[in-house]
Amino acid sequence: MGQTITEKIFSEHVGREVFAGEIIRSPIDMVIGNDITTPISIRAFEEGGFKELANPNGFAIVLDHFIPAKDIASANQAKISRDFAMKHDLKYFFDEKDMGIEHALLPEKGLVLPGDVIIGADSHTCTHGALGAFSTGMGSTDISFGMITGGNWFKVPESIKVVFKGKPAEHVTGKDLILEIIRILGVDGALYKTLEFTGESIQYLSMDDRFSLCNMAIEAGAKNGIVAFDETTKEFLDKVAEKNNGLRAEPKIHYSDEDAKYCQVIEIDTASLEPVIAYPFLPSNGHSVSQAVADEIRVDQVFIGSCTNGRLSDFKIAAEILDGKKVARHVRLILTPGTQQILREATKLGYIDTLVDAGAVVSNPTCGACLGGYMGILGDNEVCISTTNRNFVGRMGSRSSKIYLANSAVAAASAISGYITDPRSL
Amino acid sequence: MGQTITEKIFSEHVGREVFAGEIIRSPIDMVIGNDITTPISIRAFEEGGFKELANPNGFAIVLDHFIPAKDIASANQAKISRDFAMKHDLKYFFDEKDMGIEHALLPEKGLVLPGDVIIGADSHTCTHGALGAFSTGMGSTDISFGMITGGNWFKVPESIKVVFKGKPAEHVTGKDLILEIIRILGVDGALYKTLEFTGESIQYLSMDDRFSLCNMAIEAGAKNGIVAFDETTKEFLDKVAEKNNGLRAEPKIHYSDEDAKYCQVIEIDTASLEPVIAYPFLPSNGHSVSQAVADEIRVDQVFIGSCTNGRLSDFKIAAEILDGKKVARHVRLILTPGTQQILREATKLGYIDTLVDAGAVVSNPTCGACLGGYMGILGDNEVCISTTNRNFVGRMGSRSSKIYLANSAVAAASAISGYITDPRSL
Repeated sequence: MGQTITEKIFSEHVGREVFAGEIIRSPIDMVIGNDITTPISIRAFEEGGFKELANPNGFAIVLDHFIPAKDIASANQAKISRDFAMKHDLKYFFDEKDMGIEHALLPEKGLVLPGDVIIGADSHTCTHGALGAFSTGMGSTDISFGMITGGNWFKVPESIKVVFKGKPAEHVTGKDLILEIIRILGVDGALYKTLEFTGESIQYLSMDDRFSLCNMAIEAGAKNGIVAFDETTKEFLDKVAEKNNGLRAEPKIHYSDEDAKYCQVIEIDTASLEPVIAYPFLPSNGHSVSQAVADEIRVDQVFIGSCTNGRLSDFKIAAEILDGKKVARHVRLILTPGTQQILREATKLGYIDTLVDAGAVVSNPTCGACLGGYMGILGDNEVCISTTNRNFVGRMGSRSSKIYLANSAVAAASAISGYITDPRSL
Repeated sequence: MGQTITEKIFSEHVGREVFAGEIIRSPIDMVIGNDITTPISIRAFEEGGFKELANPNGFAIVLDHFIPAKDIASANQAKISRDFAMKHDLKYFFDEKDMGIEHALLPEKGLVLPGDVIIGADSHTCTHGALGAFSTGMGSTDISFGMITGGNWFKVPESIKVVFKGKPAEHVTGKDLILEIIRILGVDGALYKTLEFTGESIQYLSMDDRFSLCNMAIEAGAKNGIVAFDETTKEFLDKVAEKNNGLRAEPKIHYSDEDAKYCQVIEIDTASLEPVIAYPFLPSNGHSVSQAVADEIRVDQVFIGSCTNGRLSDFKIAAEILDGKKVARHVRLILTPGTQQILREATKLGYIDTLVDAGAVVSNPTCGACLGGYMGILGDNEVCISTTNRNFVGRMGSRSSKIYLANSAVAAASAISGYITDPRSL
């Protein structure tokens, strides 16, 4: 019987053919924690009396949510991870040094690879599926189980096949494709399922687009999102290998069989799609940018960043749109790069100068504003158009604030006018 | 009878000769508020029923302490200033656009000038005395009085003459000179007095050094610190004028008369001085760097930034010391530029690349960590060497943390070893 790519990854890991619905115990290639979630895992690890990590080089801690520390509590929280990393001489510990958002940083460092099984105590761990890995978010105690045993229990997920048809229309990005899928499926339409992204549109999607796409699989409730390895993946990995003197391990490449079983198939014509805006207060509340323009939505803040859209292409798009323009007087434009490398490349390419000239402020890499952490929190009744992944009530600050989720082109265009704007109209 | 420079500035403003001890009402050239203090001034202004600012172009609001907003409270607080700035169409309103720390930003914009009378609702407003202005911090209601009337009441201060002798020794900067003065005078040794900085060492001090020097006059309790206009001032202002299409107004240059009356004279031989470290918990608790090295003081964090030492020369010094080196594993090095311009110049000159290569994180311009705002807050029992101005209990975070104040060379050198280090030993 044919297998999906996700089934194949697990089969390879457990050494026998496994299929959706089976409960298995699989080895894990990379366990990921951050400054918020790792302390809980460490406590479980230490209270359990464990001394050694099962696989020290299969455990990465990335401090990204609240550092440089926004307050005493976050400083104390970060210290728990720092002390653990020093005690265990962790190879993959990232703090203020070479800092970045975990889901942008780890691929850049060659630490998450095609064919991997990855778990992380962060819901957007599904991002790494863009590389053809099985990657999913888990709770902190599951992470401690991964730290202790080097593996974990999984129910092999059923897969929804998403077929993207056509060449994506102008300013239609990975972000728009996933917002459209979430609009169709709803925020629980893919619960404990795989979103397997396929179709001819994929070839037109850069790795940045694919990361955005897989990043928000969780917003439809999916266990994981995945894109199969192709030439684009290869080019990305080659560059990463070059920068890092090789990858963490040899990639393992899998493809779904033609007769693999899917619980659902969704077809989307990306050529006729418009940029999608998710209105408050759910990522599934998608509207076309045309509708948003008609609705004359005034914004106080524009935020471009996060594990969803804080990559080099986001800075490129924003710089192209804002070149020679000025941010509207009543608007603040905040850009947060995903990693130091992204920031440095964006600087070298002149994007940062262009953006600052336009009136933007560019922060250090951090999760920051996206989760209401710091670096751009919303006050009462404020409205933000944001390239992030969640527009829940109070997600970025005050419970009376509103977030519209969009791609970086829409966000940048909106910064100029101060109203949600169609970048195709510029 | 001879006059001090401070007496001359006030005399010129009130149109008659005034001397120390007189209570006068002087016009003000520039009133400054920030995101923390301005909302209180605005409330007083509006509750008083006032509609118009006495001198709209003599009022600057700089949002610098908590923006991009670190939390909902700071977002709401900033909104008060934003709304006021929009309502009054303020010419000099600085937020995320072209943002910076007020005491670094305003000189750069040509808004504070020799001969000015300046008040600001921030204690480090005394910084601007480096340009030969009278500049002092006042409370928010005094600021509202300035907003309403364009002037305020002052008692003309007595002056302490500080005579710096010799050419400052290696790695002895403006910061060390002021730490030495505060060590001698104590934190209340210059209460309501002017610290007038003179002597042959002045010619060796860059404007950055002079800003550091005057910035901490308040830490000895002084009403203002002041350095007379000279060739260095002129060069600075010429550059500023070029960048800003002129200055806010024509500078007015004053010098103290030879027979001016001083309440105290302090002589300091800068050629024999060592870099000074202010130990916890007072800026007056100065020790030589040699003593600090002997004391083997381990640090968790190194912070270079603030209105005291977040200028281009600080980045230059740090980059020179950290070039090709790595920050100690247990240390985090955080650099916060004073303004966007400083950040951009430091980037162009390669300092940022060097610092990030060494393991630093560079933030957006902000007061941030210095006042325990955000962007590098200290956790329990953590130790920080910092180029900032205050090492009070809990100033940068936890009440059990400790801050050692130093210049940027000492801070950068300490980042490499993780212990307070003498940069002269590298």
